[in-house]
Amino acid sequence: MANNGVKVPLLSGSPDVTQKAKWRLNKRRLLRSRSAPGTDCVPAETNGNEPIPHTVSIFQNVHPSFKRVAIYLVVYLGVGALIFYLVRNQIRGLKTDGILDALYFTIVTMTTVGYGDLVPNSDLTKLLACAFVFSGMALMGLILSKAADYLVEKQEFLLVKAMRMHQKVGSTEILKELETNKTRYKFFLVFFLVWILIIAGTIFLVTVEKLDIVDAFYCVCSTFTTLGYGDKSFSTQAGRIFAVFWILTGTICLAQVFLYMAELNTESRQKELVKWVLTRKMTHLDLEAADLDEDGTVGAAEFVIYKLKEMGKISQEDISLVMQEFEELDVDDSGTLSASDITLAQSS
Amino acid sequence: MANNGVKVPLLSGSPDVTQKAKWRLNKRRLLRSRSAPGTDCVPAETNGNEPIPHTVSIFQNVHPSFKRVAIYLVVYLGVGALIFYLVRNQIRGLKTDGILDALYFTIVTMTTVGYGDLVPNSDLTKLLACAFVFSGMALMGLILSKAADYLVEKQEFLLVKAMRMHQKVGSTEILKELETNKTRYKFFLVFFLVWILIIAGTIFLVTVEKLDIVDAFYCVCSTFTTLGYGDKSFSTQAGRIFAVFWILTGTICLAQVFLYMAELNTESRQKELVKWVLTRKMTHLDLEAADLDEDGTVGAAEFVIYKLKEMGKISQEDISLVMQEFEELDVDDSGTLSASDITLAQSS
Repeated sequence: MANNGVKVPLLSGSPDVTQKAKWRLNKRRLLRSRSAPGTDCVPAETNGNEPIPHTVSIFQNVHPSFKRVAIYLVVYLGVGALIFYLVRNQIRGLKTDGILDALYFTIVTMTTVGYGDLVPNSDLTKLLACAFVFSGMALMGLILSKAADYLVEKQEFLLVKAMRMHQKVGSTEILKELETNKTRYKFFLVFFLVWILIIAGTIFLVTVEKLDIVDAFYCVCSTFTTLGYGDKSFSTQAGRIFAVFWILTGTICLAQVFLYMAELNTESRQKELVKWVLTRKMTHLDLEAADLDEDGTVGAAEFVIYKLKEMGKISQEDISLVMQEFEELDVDDSGTLSASDITLAQSS
Repeated sequence: MANNGVKVPLLSGSPDVTQKAKWRLNKRRLLRSRSAPGTDCVPAETNGNEPIPHTVSIFQNVHPSFKRVAIYLVVYLGVGALIFYLVRNQIRGLKTDGILDALYFTIVTMTTVGYGDLVPNSDLTKLLACAFVFSGMALMGLILSKAADYLVEKQEFLLVKAMRMHQKVGSTEILKELETNKTRYKFFLVFFLVWILIIAGTIFLVTVEKLDIVDAFYCVCSTFTTLGYGDKSFSTQAGRIFAVFWILTGTICLAQVFLYMAELNTESRQKELVKWVLTRKMTHLDLEAADLDEDGTVGAAEFVIYKLKEMGKISQEDISLVMQEFEELDVDDSGTLSASDITLAQSS
């Protein structure tokens, strides 16, 4: 290490007072959040050009994709209802009203609940059902990844408002708190919503569909999990109107609960790793490995890269890729980028 | 910028020859993969103490979790088959053989296919079905996230072996190629597997269950998507033996196809962002923002952090967290870590 005969003063060995003072000054700057453009670039679907007030910043990137998903959903349900209405004579089972049954059948197929109270009865309708269940699954995946997040964040927003009314806390503080425990909040919100939907469904099935309480609960579970044995389902017109909205939200919310549970699990493992990496004692070997530019000392930035790599947040491939770019930019081959490099690069 | 009266030579402004030579030397070191311990630490579930030959390194971290998932699955199916066998008189529908029907019912419930050819007929069995479908969903999620990866990587391993037999390419090269397009390979492998299972299922239903070809294909689609209307299902003893294995693998593989599709989509968007960040021209403003230690120049490590932040791979929170640790380690407050800091920290 550092045996290539270069006379670079090892700053850490003899820290002069000015350098020390400067470092003290910079510490504060390093610790507070610097507004690099990067933080605005992350969501690929926003242009992020307009200035956004702080309180809405966590909601901004969900709107456009939610809109797109909503359009897909409306188109899917519209086309499904129309097609299955046109071939309604090739579907057998318990029928109530032409277009409502077609929409109900589309929803039951799309969510893969598949009660079987209405089943395709010709080759054409069977193949149509196959096409609709595959595209329905893809759409459900899209909804799960996009729209549900939006709905949950809408609720978060209401929660923030509610908390501000009751407590004298700044909204930034609440938002920071929400950001840190984001997944946990999302999980509890969706979990709460699932319970409301379970209770609402059970009450509805008991009162409107005249099922006894166990049958009603059993039908609710069978629906939300998309099991759909079909021995208990919605047989009345009112029931099917309710079912259209209730099945869609219920299946999505329950799937979301499972997704957030998995996310919480990953996060807690990630946190353990981060803690382990941060509390681990630095050895001389670590120091040598972290010394990216091999000047005998480890600067703040080098330390950050080393630790983030250890945490598994970045890989050697990421670093190599950026380093190639750095080399190209470093026109004067000094090992650092300065204003002169930028000027040289622009003029060439 | 740099107006706090510190006399630090701006290296880039007057790069002396020695410094330049040193940098040239280091470039190579920076670009090749340095073996930081971090790369071994990422998978949280391996201890990674034993030396592992290069060719098995991508498989090593899947084994233990696969084993755990397999145990869960066996326990779930065992308990399910036993319980539903004991309450077989409270299940109505088309029956073939006691214990086989119980296992078949457990699988149909767990995967949420829910044909409805066998349905619970008492409060007890209805509530049992509810419990089994919820735990089944959780287990399916676990299988999806763990075991399928293992199976796919097993196939990759066979692929590597096959390629080595036919071509004279080193296994490291193939593995590197696989690593880069990992998700795509996984996607195509699972997609291929789903088609084999679809064809196998259709042939089986035509020959053994005596369905016509459209009905067979319709039943296959209805099963793999977990739709399970139930108008077509497995009614013979041979059919149900086949179904037990076929339903489980089919539903998992199809779900995996959708998961990999989503992953491919995310990856391609991520790649676009990386490309955009790397090809974007650096401006004087960028230079200032990237200058983490505010010495007027941007070192290699600072540049890497700035760009990775812009790519959304790391966040300001990550950086702040590590910076706090850095401050604590920097005992002599020099702004860099050196051997003396480590020695001081160890002695205190």
